[in-house]
Amino acid sequence: MASKPIYLGVIGVGGVGTAFLQQLSKLPNAPSLVLLARSSKTLLAPTPSYSPAIPAADWATASSAPSITTSGTLTPSEVVSYLSSAPGRSVLVDNTSDPNLASAYPEFLKAGISIVTPNKKGFSSDLSLWKDIFASAATGKALVYHESTVGAGLPVISTLRDLVATGDEVTRIEGVFSGTLSFLFNTFAPVSSPAGTSSANWSDVVSQAKELGYTEPDPRDDLNGMDVARKLTILARIAGLEVQSPDSFPIESLIPAELASLPATSEGVAEFMKRLPEFDGQMAALKEQAEKAGKVVRYVGSVDVGKKEVKVGLQQFAKDSAIAGLKGSDNIISFYTKRYGSNPLIIQGAGAGGDVTAMGVTADLIKVLERL
Amino acid sequence: MASKPIYLGVIGVGGVGTAFLQQLSKLPNAPSLVLLARSSKTLLAPTPSYSPAIPAADWATASSAPSITTSGTLTPSEVVSYLSSAPGRSVLVDNTSDPNLASAYPEFLKAGISIVTPNKKGFSSDLSLWKDIFASAATGKALVYHESTVGAGLPVISTLRDLVATGDEVTRIEGVFSGTLSFLFNTFAPVSSPAGTSSANWSDVVSQAKELGYTEPDPRDDLNGMDVARKLTILARIAGLEVQSPDSFPIESLIPAELASLPATSEGVAEFMKRLPEFDGQMAALKEQAEKAGKVVRYVGSVDVGKKEVKVGLQQFAKDSAIAGLKGSDNIISFYTKRYGSNPLIIQGAGAGGDVTAMGVTADLIKVLERL
Repeated sequence: MASKPIYLGVIGVGGVGTAFLQQLSKLPNAPSLVLLARSSKTLLAPTPSYSPAIPAADWATASSAPSITTSGTLTPSEVVSYLSSAPGRSVLVDNTSDPNLASAYPEFLKAGISIVTPNKKGFSSDLSLWKDIFASAATGKALVYHESTVGAGLPVISTLRDLVATGDEVTRIEGVFSGTLSFLFNTFAPVSSPAGTSSANWSDVVSQAKELGYTEPDPRDDLNGMDVARKLTILARIAGLEVQSPDSFPIESLIPAELASLPATSEGVAEFMKRLPEFDGQMAALKEQAEKAGKVVRYVGSVDVGKKEVKVGLQQFAKDSAIAGLKGSDNIISFYTKRYGSNPLIIQGAGAGGDVTAMGVTADLIKVLERL
Repeated sequence: MASKPIYLGVIGVGGVGTAFLQQLSKLPNAPSLVLLARSSKTLLAPTPSYSPAIPAADWATASSAPSITTSGTLTPSEVVSYLSSAPGRSVLVDNTSDPNLASAYPEFLKAGISIVTPNKKGFSSDLSLWKDIFASAATGKALVYHESTVGAGLPVISTLRDLVATGDEVTRIEGVFSGTLSFLFNTFAPVSSPAGTSSANWSDVVSQAKELGYTEPDPRDDLNGMDVARKLTILARIAGLEVQSPDSFPIESLIPAELASLPATSEGVAEFMKRLPEFDGQMAALKEQAEKAGKVVRYVGSVDVGKKEVKVGLQQFAKDSAIAGLKGSDNIISFYTKRYGSNPLIIQGAGAGGDVTAMGVTADLIKVLERL
């Protein structure tokens, strides 16, 4: 563990951000929290001493602490300037899903500021940003850790990087990468229905998931498959494929074409939910078709490294397969490699939720602190 | 990645050691190999320059390289003395299963030499050695990585350490931890027997595994459960239990009591294999008993952190459970934690074999190099 003081900036205080602050406050030898920002407000430790640090427990405690400087939203460049002037090395934890902040990662890294984040945008947008991020990290001798961008706290990114770094050949990656879509299909098409229950309508399952908070506020943000496509983009790139962007390969959207043009407003969402039952027949037909083959339908993503093929969409799986047997909103990721042979290395468990996502962020932060 | 030169000593050139050397030789920015030892011979880079380094590809290449000093077996203290005099930080990779070398880890660590190893002995013997190892590492500011002591290259130790370090509460760990015992039971009591095949005798399955090289030369070294007990000891200790030694909890041995006293000689092994069929009826009865409950029998280990209970032995599992469905010689490890709730974090895949075990060692070495 580093003995020099390390300075920490944290942006984002939503579900993941709040859970992260709690974990941070219990960390032995935690770095000094000197910047904490949410949408329109930024808390800062006073310059030039960058002391006292901001208490990490939660936003309320932090914002009511005395001797803290308060400001409105800072631009990424202003954050870079503040952190890089700290009297020691610094780390930015980006707990947002903001594409603008992500596109500024190269600026942070070139200034020697390391980055830890569950924000997928920096790693799954245009290939040029991905390349810029890792080149800038090398230039600035800074580190980039993003375990929670795929599978939340599950050791997915680290395992894939270890396989590649030690010289294994990853041939195929396959799995269920969305907690939301996992829940939807495990509920809509379970391997075995409890006796006496009638099978659920697709639209009812979506409504239920929305009410439980398992979907994004606009369920179309899950159903369009883009979240899964972004995760596959990240894994494919680590495995060595130059994927240009997450829309450069086929993505099967679960949004009926007829509803695709509804606006992304709360009225649009309401209209979408109201009209979704019209398409229950289509989903029931897909389910029955699989059923006739003794299978179940699941929403999966796969990377075939040899064929340079990335795919996201519905597939049928045998009822005794690991993917069919998933429970709740679990993710499952299988790595097929030369060394592991015919039986893949499999990682399975909750792939969403504030606590487990924050765990991936905190574990990454610990690794960065150990290396700085 | 460290820019200063790092000096590497490697002991053991068996299956894992040979695969490791191959991986090492392909590593970019590999450290200088300055000591390579097998049973009765040690190769050394000449002092005081510790240069030229030993070529890493394999033992034959290494031992025929010019400008290499050759010696007989060095004592651990002599290895410590040689490595700690190198003109930079050094790392010992112990690819043996030697308890004597393991008991000298504290001496290495106090001298500032980091340790990377798949050797279980240092971490699963008396609790005092475990404590001495980690206290010595702190004293010498040296690092200890031992991913491959459990589940070979599977990310088991690192995941458990991340869960603990980020403040999750691990409540239970359960799984199949022996590739050999996994193969034996997946073959002896498969979930579904292919039509027309008669079920195998236990002794035949053991013979087959022995011939395939899946067992230790003396299969009793697998059947006594000690290898599994050592792995459980390591996991329980990381989870916070002060397990005194691997024989301080119940271990169900699969060696019939009547054959336990046969000597550990090749004659003893031959006699054991010859008499094993006498006990096929007992194993068949266990299998049938499970079958009647619609289950299969498997050899598992578990840690109940709350109850401070570690157990190793046979248990029955439902046919649709993940443990029953294991294939080949795969391991499966389930972590039940407060954050992950009712669905555990699961890691599954090959838990034995030179290449995948060496992969865990190489990945650990990369992490140590990044931190030194």
